[in-house]
Amino acid sequence: MKAIQVGLLGIGTVGSGTYKVLTRNQEEIRRRAGRAIEITMVADLDVERARSIVGDGIKVVADGREVIANPDIDIVVELIGGYGVAKALVLEAIAAGKHVVTANKALLAVHGNEIFAAAREKGVMVAFEAAVAGGIPIIKALREGLTANRIEWIAGIINGTTNFILSEMRDKGLDFDVVLKEAQRLGYAEADPTFDIEGIDAAHKATVMSAIAFGIPMQFDKAHVEGIVGLQAADIRHAESLGYRIKLLGITRRRADANGIELRVHPTLVPAKRLIANVEGAMNAVVVQADAVGTTLYYGKGAGAEPTASAVVADLVDITRLHTADPDHRVPHLAFRADSLSDTPILPIAQTVTAFYLRLRVADEAGVLSRITTTLAEHDISIDAVLQRPSSDQKAGEQDLIILTHNTVEGKMRTAIAKMQALSTVLAPIVSLRKEDLA
Amino acid sequence: MKAIQVGLLGIGTVGSGTYKVLTRNQEEIRRRAGRAIEITMVADLDVERARSIVGDGIKVVADGREVIANPDIDIVVELIGGYGVAKALVLEAIAAGKHVVTANKALLAVHGNEIFAAAREKGVMVAFEAAVAGGIPIIKALREGLTANRIEWIAGIINGTTNFILSEMRDKGLDFDVVLKEAQRLGYAEADPTFDIEGIDAAHKATVMSAIAFGIPMQFDKAHVEGIVGLQAADIRHAESLGYRIKLLGITRRRADANGIELRVHPTLVPAKRLIANVEGAMNAVVVQADAVGTTLYYGKGAGAEPTASAVVADLVDITRLHTADPDHRVPHLAFRADSLSDTPILPIAQTVTAFYLRLRVADEAGVLSRITTTLAEHDISIDAVLQRPSSDQKAGEQDLIILTHNTVEGKMRTAIAKMQALSTVLAPIVSLRKEDLA
Repeated sequence: MKAIQVGLLGIGTVGSGTYKVLTRNQEEIRRRAGRAIEITMVADLDVERARSIVGDGIKVVADGREVIANPDIDIVVELIGGYGVAKALVLEAIAAGKHVVTANKALLAVHGNEIFAAAREKGVMVAFEAAVAGGIPIIKALREGLTANRIEWIAGIINGTTNFILSEMRDKGLDFDVVLKEAQRLGYAEADPTFDIEGIDAAHKATVMSAIAFGIPMQFDKAHVEGIVGLQAADIRHAESLGYRIKLLGITRRRADANGIELRVHPTLVPAKRLIANVEGAMNAVVVQADAVGTTLYYGKGAGAEPTASAVVADLVDITRLHTADPDHRVPHLAFRADSLSDTPILPIAQTVTAFYLRLRVADEAGVLSRITTTLAEHDISIDAVLQRPSSDQKAGEQDLIILTHNTVEGKMRTAIAKMQALSTVLAPIVSLRKEDLA
Repeated sequence: MKAIQVGLLGIGTVGSGTYKVLTRNQEEIRRRAGRAIEITMVADLDVERARSIVGDGIKVVADGREVIANPDIDIVVELIGGYGVAKALVLEAIAAGKHVVTANKALLAVHGNEIFAAAREKGVMVAFEAAVAGGIPIIKALREGLTANRIEWIAGIINGTTNFILSEMRDKGLDFDVVLKEAQRLGYAEADPTFDIEGIDAAHKATVMSAIAFGIPMQFDKAHVEGIVGLQAADIRHAESLGYRIKLLGITRRRADANGIELRVHPTLVPAKRLIANVEGAMNAVVVQADAVGTTLYYGKGAGAEPTASAVVADLVDITRLHTADPDHRVPHLAFRADSLSDTPILPIAQTVTAFYLRLRVADEAGVLSRITTTLAEHDISIDAVLQRPSSDQKAGEQDLIILTHNTVEGKMRTAIAKMQALSTVLAPIVSLRKEDLA
């Protein structure tokens, strides 16, 4: 059978990885797919560098539109990133009747609905395994492996940079700023780490998972996003002594009681005995809770040239296999068919339900604890555990009060925190972190 | 679109679970698959019980052949188990042009080659996600998610009964026999637990994974199989103190240096810090090492009505989707196309390479350790660690010598063990367990 011809848009880290993996494992892949899959054209602004990677046998151009216009190209792989050129080229490729593979979570989370609608119209596939958790086949697990299930929630470590930073903070007892510098030096964090450390990258990925888990449109603008900037070593230590680890989790949860869906990214206390709490360094892991199968977990490298290429090439093979199936029988882009997407809304953060970890710097005097617990009780917040500790800077007459609560509606907690903050015996801004049991 | 009609052969635990999940989640599944999937006929020897499960709307018969003969049935699900009737009915269903879903690892590991050949001839699919690790979509990950990769090795906790027993032995410091009785009382082990505790069930599953990972035929008869019978609490304790847990692993590994494939099931020491070492109770987990993606891990429930049903139904949806693709473009049964299977042989156990844990009961006298280490050195076996401990039964003049070795060819180790066993200062049968780093 004739080879499937692939055109790459952008040959940076992931593009080079894809070229390398396809070349190195071409025989293994052909034995599986039944036909060869070959990159026959590459577009990159840096034509020289691109040519130095792929050699002379492959046509290299500066303009992605030449790739799209080539009638021999069956699949266009977009690895440019961002929303600008990438979006335009993906839409043009679709308009030209090409199947598309992309690793671009930002593009999908923000413009996915438009892109998938265009793809449906033209009867082409848009595959995006590489957009979430790198080489872990989590998109496939959600869209195909768990089709029997009503998915209840997903919680994932889906940003390697922040997990590396949190692991180092815990291991070495260091503060955020110090570890970030080290991560940048080691290449685990970019020069401008904003997208990672502020949780935006994780929120893109959580948005994609939320859509395919619950059959709703992409709604990145409704996601609640908090990063790990400002997280203090003291809280990691206290959490540890209470049996918890702090992880930056992307969480999405179906809330039948509120007829809505939670979609949020934030540092989260997780029981130390959970597998996901033990995922260290730059590794990723996603836990999925579903009604028939129960809990499943998927673990692996969430970034890097070859792990991401692994996902890109898996998509290429899938398209090679599925392009002969009638479009109506293919796996729907968003796991659920476009005509049966749900309009269940994303809930505002005030309506989400989690437990909380609070740290209050208080005056070391009689009645303080009583005033605080009374305030919590007045807001229907029940307490799971209380620790009193010398204040982290050892100031006389002050101490740290650490409180774990049971599940509560976030809005009530915010009101209670404001009330407690106003107490004269509360001497510093209250630290609050969400806690999930993930059982 | 017309509903896909499914006929069940056997409605025991998994069959009832499949009926329940398909019924409860029919709307969710239809939204994904684009058409309804309905069980319309059931065959079970116990017609009365079957009818009490599925009610009056579904035709119940005693003879599976009636289901196969029904021209309205699109997919036949075999949940009878074993090699006898199950094999005959699967082959008859294929001959009748039906697609088949089965959870029967024993049947596939032993007669898979014949079954897949028949299916190819008739152009039908035989899907078996439920055959390995219950609800974890590991077959899909191996056959589709990791298509870009050259898979290097797989190591899995793929039998929940034995993992439950090992977890309890470790937690409570109890011996095998005691925990087995408890497991039987709790329903984690069957009245006749032979298939589980002797490693046969795990070997069936390892055989299936080996075939689809490396593109080789099923070769259960070549698998090396050891169970956990006779495993002693003392060794679990010593392993723990050296930083290891003992797990029953199904392992298959490509050995480029020996032009062969290892396929084996045995109790294995694994570093305690590995995620898979922390998989407790009846849970399953599979680690896959592959050249592009690196290490990935898949975790979940390996048995039970609904987790297994989750996999059966996922297969039903896959067939619903793929049956319109031309057969040449479907996912090959064994992940690799039948015309490109490899004849790389399964290596005899003597040629496998692992590290070892040894426990020797020795006389407490000068020169003992020297004689033993000399014997190991003479067989090119290098030592990683040595512990001396009072003998577990506190006998005067005796002690236990615990040795961890580096990787060695098993044949050499067996010869060395025989030599050491013959020493007059070695007072009891030498305990030997394999150790894997899984890094």
